[in-house]
Amino acid sequence: MPEVTAADIAWMQEALAEADKGIYITTPNPSVGCVLVKEGEVVGRGHTQPAGQAHAEVMALRSAGALSVGATAYVTLEPCSHFGRTPPCADALIRAGISRLVVAALDPNPLVSGQGLDRIKAAGIEVVTGVLADAATYQLRGFLSRMTRHRPWLRLKIAASLDGKTALANGDSKWITGNASRSDVQHWRARSCAMVTGIGTVIADDPQLNVRILNGEDWHGRQPVTVILDTDLKISPNAKILKNPQVVVLTANTAQLQTIASDHIQVVVLPREGHHLSMRAVLDFLSSQSWNEVTVEAGAILNAAFLDSGMVDEIILYQAPKLLGTGGREMIASKPLQNLASATTFVVKDCQPVGEDMRWILHTQPKPSALVQTEVE
Amino acid sequence: MPEVTAADIAWMQEALAEADKGIYITTPNPSVGCVLVKEGEVVGRGHTQPAGQAHAEVMALRSAGALSVGATAYVTLEPCSHFGRTPPCADALIRAGISRLVVAALDPNPLVSGQGLDRIKAAGIEVVTGVLADAATYQLRGFLSRMTRHRPWLRLKIAASLDGKTALANGDSKWITGNASRSDVQHWRARSCAMVTGIGTVIADDPQLNVRILNGEDWHGRQPVTVILDTDLKISPNAKILKNPQVVVLTANTAQLQTIASDHIQVVVLPREGHHLSMRAVLDFLSSQSWNEVTVEAGAILNAAFLDSGMVDEIILYQAPKLLGTGGREMIASKPLQNLASATTFVVKDCQPVGEDMRWILHTQPKPSALVQTEVE
Repeated sequence: MPEVTAADIAWMQEALAEADKGIYITTPNPSVGCVLVKEGEVVGRGHTQPAGQAHAEVMALRSAGALSVGATAYVTLEPCSHFGRTPPCADALIRAGISRLVVAALDPNPLVSGQGLDRIKAAGIEVVTGVLADAATYQLRGFLSRMTRHRPWLRLKIAASLDGKTALANGDSKWITGNASRSDVQHWRARSCAMVTGIGTVIADDPQLNVRILNGEDWHGRQPVTVILDTDLKISPNAKILKNPQVVVLTANTAQLQTIASDHIQVVVLPREGHHLSMRAVLDFLSSQSWNEVTVEAGAILNAAFLDSGMVDEIILYQAPKLLGTGGREMIASKPLQNLASATTFVVKDCQPVGEDMRWILHTQPKPSALVQTEVE
Repeated sequence: MPEVTAADIAWMQEALAEADKGIYITTPNPSVGCVLVKEGEVVGRGHTQPAGQAHAEVMALRSAGALSVGATAYVTLEPCSHFGRTPPCADALIRAGISRLVVAALDPNPLVSGQGLDRIKAAGIEVVTGVLADAATYQLRGFLSRMTRHRPWLRLKIAASLDGKTALANGDSKWITGNASRSDVQHWRARSCAMVTGIGTVIADDPQLNVRILNGEDWHGRQPVTVILDTDLKISPNAKILKNPQVVVLTANTAQLQTIASDHIQVVVLPREGHHLSMRAVLDFLSSQSWNEVTVEAGAILNAAFLDSGMVDEIILYQAPKLLGTGGREMIASKPLQNLASATTFVVKDCQPVGEDMRWILHTQPKPSALVQTEVE
């Protein structure tokens, strides 16, 4: 059994930090980080480039040049072993002469799983897996969800008061949370493949749900696809959200599709269930796209529908230290409960201050690591 | 201007930790801590004993014995200079031969304020004030409130879900928060001079609101006085809360006082205002007692009444990562707002995990240090 040292853990942290740099640009590929270390020093580092361009390992090997010979490679996800749009990273690592490979999470992609590692071991390179696997799995949760569950990692973003209200009775919701929270939201949008909302929110707030400013700078990078659930196709052609570069309107109304369809707006007809779209059909649609992470910013009814579907993995709740009082709008219009044991209960993954507010990261499952195996059999 | 060193701050931390040991036993006196340091070592330490017994300085001097000569005394509150139930600590420090005195908060008690320090300075002892004054003021907030504002520090304790509910529509509230939160509540009760609740809570939950277990051990110490707001005197003689050692029932119903009055149950008649007791009269009553900290554990209506009175200083909110959903009971039945700017907004003093829940400490004022001056003019 190969030994894992404290240094291995520290270097894998570096590789995770490297991977973090790519989270807004690599989709539908996972953002992977790689650090090459020799005699206690980093000799190369890299992270996944936009799809079709170099993977993390290749970027790190390029930056190391001849120094990669005899180095240890720390990679957050098992190196690929197949020809996709780029040649296999496993081969590149072997050719570069590394002496040891440390991997966090294994790749559940059936085209990769275990094969890259077998090839690397066969070349006489020591392989260690599972180092900081939980952290890597969390970082890669969108990609891993798509691979293992054939559906995106589904996140609800909610901004509420201490008493769980998202707006006053008169609809006023600008602003409950502070500037810092609203800036923070931009990160979740930027890392999402798609943003989902409902026609109620579009009519009430006319939001755009795009990425405008990231880390204090105007954002000119990739925008998430915008998905609007609009059962009766009530959306105004002037809605700001329709200005986004890629929009999908999900509707059950086939009568007037021509009013909004255009080059960048796709209208998809789904079955109706009662007054709303069939949530099963909505989720199937979301799963049919090559989307890793999907974020819902919607009102109480749609939030409840997604939660009731059992497909929500994560809630990002910004909670302002304010009281909105009786009559304010609920954050989730869930059904009245008969007993406390049936209350939806989350695992608090994180809770920390963002400006004057607190940001909760809540998970519906104890561990996202259930998404993937972390050790080779 | 006498210099404050990093060591001074570290020793004052020790003195604050010492003071923490007395918070359940000293009321109506403040719990003060004292550490005597000589040549970089602690030679004596002490904290305030129950009222009528020794103060912190005397405890520390006793433990130091002859070693106090030439020592620096770190005290969290200005030493007293008057004969109360014990002789003045200022004189004891002078007699013991200390060479330097470092004080956190000044005593706003008009019988003390500045006089003790003048006496100590006159004896040729160097005096420094204001070291960790904010932390000391926070620790002493109940006593300081009583001295400077002539009313207790008023705290609401609330246990709620993420969506701000304290019970299901059917009243079920056992338990929303976890064991760790419910244990933590015992500390707030133990440091309170009085616990306040309403007849609605008494009828619905039959709580006792006493201190049962503290730090894992059965509590046999002082119990807070229990105060019940019971406008129409509906309380059952069998209510568990009436078993507490000291109970005060506030009522506007003078008809049947004899049904519950007894040696340990005081019935106080206050004016009615509409359907409820006059909150002004309730607050006057609370202020007329020698109470430092008063904690309210009540329902949404009484919580709102206290908040509306403008007298709430602190909310301790235990929030469980659960959804109770539509129809659940609100935590505070505040009036509907017309605009967001008028929302009651708190300062988050602290927010951290307690078991599976999060505990917020929310203040209505930016700084409790407004309670007291920290530097000598």
